[in-house]
Amino acid sequence: MQNFDYMTPTRLIFGKGVISKLPEVMRGFGKKILLTYGGGSIKKLGLYDKVKELLKDSEIYELSGIQPNPKYDPSVLDGVKISKEKDIDVILAVGGGSVLDCSKAIAAGAKYDGDPWDLISYKVKAKAALPIVDIITLAATGSEYDSGGVISRTETNDKIGYMDPLLYPAVSFLDPTYTFTVSKKQTAAGCADAMNHIMEQYFCEDSTLLNDGFMEAGLKSLMVNARKCLDNPEDYTARAEMMLDCTYGCNAIYSLGNSQSGWPCHGMEHALSAYYDITHGEGLAIITPRWMKHILSEKTIDRFVKYGVNVFGIDCKHDKFDIANKAIDETYKFFESIGIPMHLKEVGIDESRLGEMAHHVAENEGLENAWAPLNEQDILDIFKASL
Amino acid sequence: MQNFDYMTPTRLIFGKGVISKLPEVMRGFGKKILLTYGGGSIKKLGLYDKVKELLKDSEIYELSGIQPNPKYDPSVLDGVKISKEKDIDVILAVGGGSVLDCSKAIAAGAKYDGDPWDLISYKVKAKAALPIVDIITLAATGSEYDSGGVISRTETNDKIGYMDPLLYPAVSFLDPTYTFTVSKKQTAAGCADAMNHIMEQYFCEDSTLLNDGFMEAGLKSLMVNARKCLDNPEDYTARAEMMLDCTYGCNAIYSLGNSQSGWPCHGMEHALSAYYDITHGEGLAIITPRWMKHILSEKTIDRFVKYGVNVFGIDCKHDKFDIANKAIDETYKFFESIGIPMHLKEVGIDESRLGEMAHHVAENEGLENAWAPLNEQDILDIFKASL
Repeated sequence: MQNFDYMTPTRLIFGKGVISKLPEVMRGFGKKILLTYGGGSIKKLGLYDKVKELLKDSEIYELSGIQPNPKYDPSVLDGVKISKEKDIDVILAVGGGSVLDCSKAIAAGAKYDGDPWDLISYKVKAKAALPIVDIITLAATGSEYDSGGVISRTETNDKIGYMDPLLYPAVSFLDPTYTFTVSKKQTAAGCADAMNHIMEQYFCEDSTLLNDGFMEAGLKSLMVNARKCLDNPEDYTARAEMMLDCTYGCNAIYSLGNSQSGWPCHGMEHALSAYYDITHGEGLAIITPRWMKHILSEKTIDRFVKYGVNVFGIDCKHDKFDIANKAIDETYKFFESIGIPMHLKEVGIDESRLGEMAHHVAENEGLENAWAPLNEQDILDIFKASL
Repeated sequence: MQNFDYMTPTRLIFGKGVISKLPEVMRGFGKKILLTYGGGSIKKLGLYDKVKELLKDSEIYELSGIQPNPKYDPSVLDGVKISKEKDIDVILAVGGGSVLDCSKAIAAGAKYDGDPWDLISYKVKAKAALPIVDIITLAATGSEYDSGGVISRTETNDKIGYMDPLLYPAVSFLDPTYTFTVSKKQTAAGCADAMNHIMEQYFCEDSTLLNDGFMEAGLKSLMVNARKCLDNPEDYTARAEMMLDCTYGCNAIYSLGNSQSGWPCHGMEHALSAYYDITHGEGLAIITPRWMKHILSEKTIDRFVKYGVNVFGIDCKHDKFDIANKAIDETYKFFESIGIPMHLKEVGIDESRLGEMAHHVAENEGLENAWAPLNEQDILDIFKASL
């Protein structure tokens, strides 16, 4: 078991109707609010009007149009500009993980005099950040309970994961009813995203009985509840359980004391969505089972056996490679069964840039240090197997 | 799934040798430290000298002699007096849960002008508290990651659980090597305490797949690792896993969104250790299986079946009451197997005051509102069955 230093200072306010606490919460941070959101979905939900009504005594400035795979230019840069010009006290991010990720980069950039990319690229360590409150409308990334965000810079095809303890949200509002209208496509992609967050932590050299139990429960719960959400989008309990499952996904609490895994699927998927702007969760679901097949070996087999037996209930008396291969097949079949396109070609990616992407990943993601190390050829092989 | 509002602001610094961070951590809170501890064990460990050496630039005042089932008079009152007289900045609690529980009451009392019992008895809500840092030397109560403490007042036979969000430790240092010298008796009692914390949350009306998985993993990990610690007290991994298992035990993260259980075994055990000053974990281990037998019914059976199948691996195809009864027997046998005296008579409690204690519990613990409600007669029956 490894040493660790852990704290999550985020307050989770969870459940139906909890938005009524918003005015009291926001009052604690000041009067000038930067309200960040994406397209029209929060308006369709009525959430935009509700927030404006609840905060009518505050001074609200807005940054809208934040896209999935949120962009440095214009979103982060615009948000930093408004924050500085208007002397913003607190950011209120309303939407999914992309809106929140973008808001985290804005929060740091707003308190920095130079180019915000210095922070995101870790050239400079942030010294301060604006506080962030969020209202989550999509169960997926877990950004509401972690200190990171992923930002894309289109001109360089960079998609960078940026983490800093200053960026934990101060308060996350989680009302499962806001996810009732999430499409089947996004519900499935959110499930795959959260499952991959857990798997990235699960497949490592050194774990504990407790962490394994946590993560196996997380994976099983996501599979059961995502199916229920797809069958009945207004199943409150299923939406609520899935929402909390996703919230924990990227928080280190699932793997305190574990050795590092290297997050290889995220490393590879970042290239796919940076080059082709595909849905992150779909990219992960496509890559994950191919990565599993690729790294399966005598060295990694025991974790796969544990995964197969404890997550999919495969009989532990079978041959260990049979268990592992069946577990990988079950992983693939589950993603397929919830409607995820399981080939890169189905999401608009052909073989033309696979080599370029594999090179970019090998240069930038440090996957030679992952639990099962990947070089450029390994990455290319995984991409090809995913076509 | 129930609504909830959750935050744990405690920083966990975990692993071998982490005490080297102590000076840096303490510097953030100020110069005047109240060092609290129990008997001589931290001196035998060398921890007392180490702390004094690391903090030689601070102004340290001491409160020693804090007992198991920590006492309001003299410990809490003395600590409050020193804190006020010396204008203490921060409390450093070194020891087990009792030292930390006592320190929490001191932290609140130090910032209150009246009788600290007003706070502990919830007559007055605390408005402030001193920050607390702890160094844990016993894996058991989880006080290092919760906002509560239990204080005994000898003259009234009161043993009160006192909770306030102000009382989360700011920083908890957890070095498993400090638990190498914990006796077999205390190792077993710590395991029983932590297991009971989980069971109290597990047995409720409404839980989630994720929470059940968390708690089942917690119980299984505690049983496996406690045995390893008893077999080889210097097994670092087992001590480390057990330490973290215990840390989570009393934190709400195991049951976010669950309905309330009422914590009936704690309610009953508080009387036993208030009247007889027995070891808390032993009292819990004695009561728990008798309580289980007492509340087993058509209403509660499904949770017991889940417990039996998922924690003890009992075949789910058996009759459900057979599964439940076997699970309760396994619980009893586990506690017995780690050396816990499983009868009240073995810990010095005879039948003479059972009625008085049952009356005290019925009057003060609100167990008529527990998941499986208990009236005075129920409590007396459970005590008698525990003799």
